Amino acid sequence: MSYHIIAGTQDFLESLRGKKASLLLATSVTRTCEIPNLSQAGIPEHLHLTPTLDAEFITVKQVRSLQHIASTPSGIPTPALITRAVHELNPFKSIEILDLGLEVKPKIEHFKIHSFDLTPSENITQHAHIDAFEVFQKGVAFAQNYEPQADYTILAESVPAGTTTAMATAMALGYEATNCFSSSFKNAPQSLKQQVVEDALKHTVSSMDVFEKLSALSDNMIIFNAGFILGLQATSHKLILAGGTQMASVLLVVNSLLQTMGGELESSKIALCTTQWIAKDETSNIKALLDQLDFQINAYAAQFDFSSSTSEVLKLYDQGEAKEGVGAGGALIYGLINGLEAQSIVKKVEQLLYA
Amino acid sequence: MSYHIIAGTQDFLESLRGKKASLLLATSVTRTCEIPNLSQAGIPEHLHLTPTLDAEFITVKQVRSLQHIASTPSGIPTPALITRAVHELNPFKSIEILDLGLEVKPKIEHFKIHSFDLTPSENITQHAHIDAFEVFQKGVAFAQNYEPQADYTILAESVPAGTTTAMATAMALGYEATNCFSSSFKNAPQSLKQQVVEDALKHTVSSMDVFEKLSALSDNMIIFNAGFILGLQATSHKLILAGGTQMASVLLVVNSLLQTMGGELESSKIALCTTQWIAKDETSNIKALLDQLDFQINAYAAQFDFSSSTSEVLKLYDQGEAKEGVGAGGALIYGLINGLEAQSIVKKVEQLLYA
Repeated sequence: MSYHIIAGTQDFLESLRGKKASLLLATSVTRTCEIPNLSQAGIPEHLHLTPTLDAEFITVKQVRSLQHIASTPSGIPTPALITRAVHELNPFKSIEILDLGLEVKPKIEHFKIHSFDLTPSENITQHAHIDAFEVFQKGVAFAQNYEPQADYTILAESVPAGTTTAMATAMALGYEATNCFSSSFKNAPQSLKQQVVEDALKHTVSSMDVFEKLSALSDNMIIFNAGFILGLQATSHKLILAGGTQMASVLLVVNSLLQTMGGELESSKIALCTTQWIAKDETSNIKALLDQLDFQINAYAAQFDFSSSTSEVLKLYDQGEAKEGVGAGGALIYGLINGLEAQSIVKKVEQLLYA
Repeated sequence: MSYHIIAGTQDFLESLRGKKASLLLATSVTRTCEIPNLSQAGIPEHLHLTPTLDAEFITVKQVRSLQHIASTPSGIPTPALITRAVHELNPFKSIEILDLGLEVKPKIEHFKIHSFDLTPSENITQHAHIDAFEVFQKGVAFAQNYEPQADYTILAESVPAGTTTAMATAMALGYEATNCFSSSFKNAPQSLKQQVVEDALKHTVSSMDVFEKLSALSDNMIIFNAGFILGLQATSHKLILAGGTQMASVLLVVNSLLQTMGGELESSKIALCTTQWIAKDETSNIKALLDQLDFQINAYAAQFDFSSSTSEVLKLYDQGEAKEGVGAGGALIYGLINGLEAQSIVKKVEQLLYA
């Protein structure tokens, strides 16, 4: 096996072995990332640039909106390195960027950047001020007009502080989320995160409908992707959600919407793929989140770590820093089920890091 | 990077990463190749067979119209080996041959050989006797009816003595071409080449229009490809010109035609890809040719050499022999942006050479 099964069986993933995938990177900014010490997904004071830089790096291997590739204060490099490494060794058929509210547009040519007239959402402790129904509908519409470039699609995300908005989202919708959400930190700032989520939840009351709650404390990526998933159900196209607990939160939103609006999810068309740093994380619990879904879902974790690397900063991943993001887990699995050796991915990441 | 940027940015090429290409090989004979010692692209006295043999070798890995694969008197093997090696490791979606005036038709089945009722053009020192406007129109028409088999197309060439006709073409059109054109020889026979071009230029006067000049001293490949490029502009299909200074000359013809006929080239649909033997060649200057274009063009050189090879004849490439042809540079880049390691291409070329 080149992956671990978190939920379901291997059949879904095995049916994709040898097929080509397109990568969609859903990027957005929530001003929640401006809360000090909440996220280490990028450079402090410049976290809002992280999704822009990630988009630039995976497409053209350059960060053009800042001098250096996003790395954390402790020097942990972005998981975009992993996604780019796989793309160089076993390329995606295409990479397209979804601008779901960026501060700065990626400076790239010849790549589709889909714009949806969305602006960064506000700090959820103050109310996010999202028009959730509108964002959701844009996701549905995008799916309905989506013309696949490849056999299946891998949907990734880059949203700094996104695990906090994901946790607030899950809790507002009534799911058990305590100690379930991961963090870009090894030692997750759980008390800070908890406090932010508690402050955010004050803007919701249980009588609100799903969209009202999402408007207050979610983020554009989660809401849009829930719409995209449901919009894509009308087709036979297969989708991999490449991400950890944030993508689990997207599925929880889908679950709540189905409960409210009726309908079922044909979950044989969709799976979640993440890293084993998420799957084995002792400070979060993606399985517990997925277990709360009313539908069956296949979920997998890439069998990949940096134990064979000589790079000390990459080994920080194995100690629990960074963990996931920019589609790293999905990209790894895509590479591994298409014949790449983990060892060659490690080497390519090292090359990119020390180029 | 798996390539160097000669002009423009990496974005065009990065957007093709992971996509499949069809290869079109434009083949033609100019009797200019019968001038002794002007070209080493093949066997002396049999240079007119080289495009035929190249077409046979890249498609079916056999030279059927002669016993041995085209190699030079000093034993330098054809760059078709490189193109074939990439095709075996990361195949083109299709290979089609454009017969733009061959002496002998390739003996291959199941591959499309497009015929255009063209005969070899004459020695340019005597006047090439080409109906340039007709050849150009055939290129335009072919583009208009072109049904892409893949995501993009790589257009390659095999024309012995083609750098001489390319140089004559550029000079007749008024471009600065001194020391700009490469040669299949390491020590380019510049004085002979210069003399041939000077003799050819005697058949033109400045009052002639572009087509009259091309009729006198160009070759069918250059003229047809200029038409193909312009005809393809009506579509969104992306094209890579796989070649060195000959393909630069094609672009100069396009440039002159646009100056005369009006119109603009949407150069975001087109790029030139060559070898680094051309890009780094001290006896020619492809950059200086491209700089004379009125439009922006992306141009790249494959990061590939034979330094890791144990073959002495292959290492002659690194010393400046052969350099390019039969789409070698474009093929290398196609392989490298689809995950091939340079090392594996070297090994495959060695296998083909010593098979």
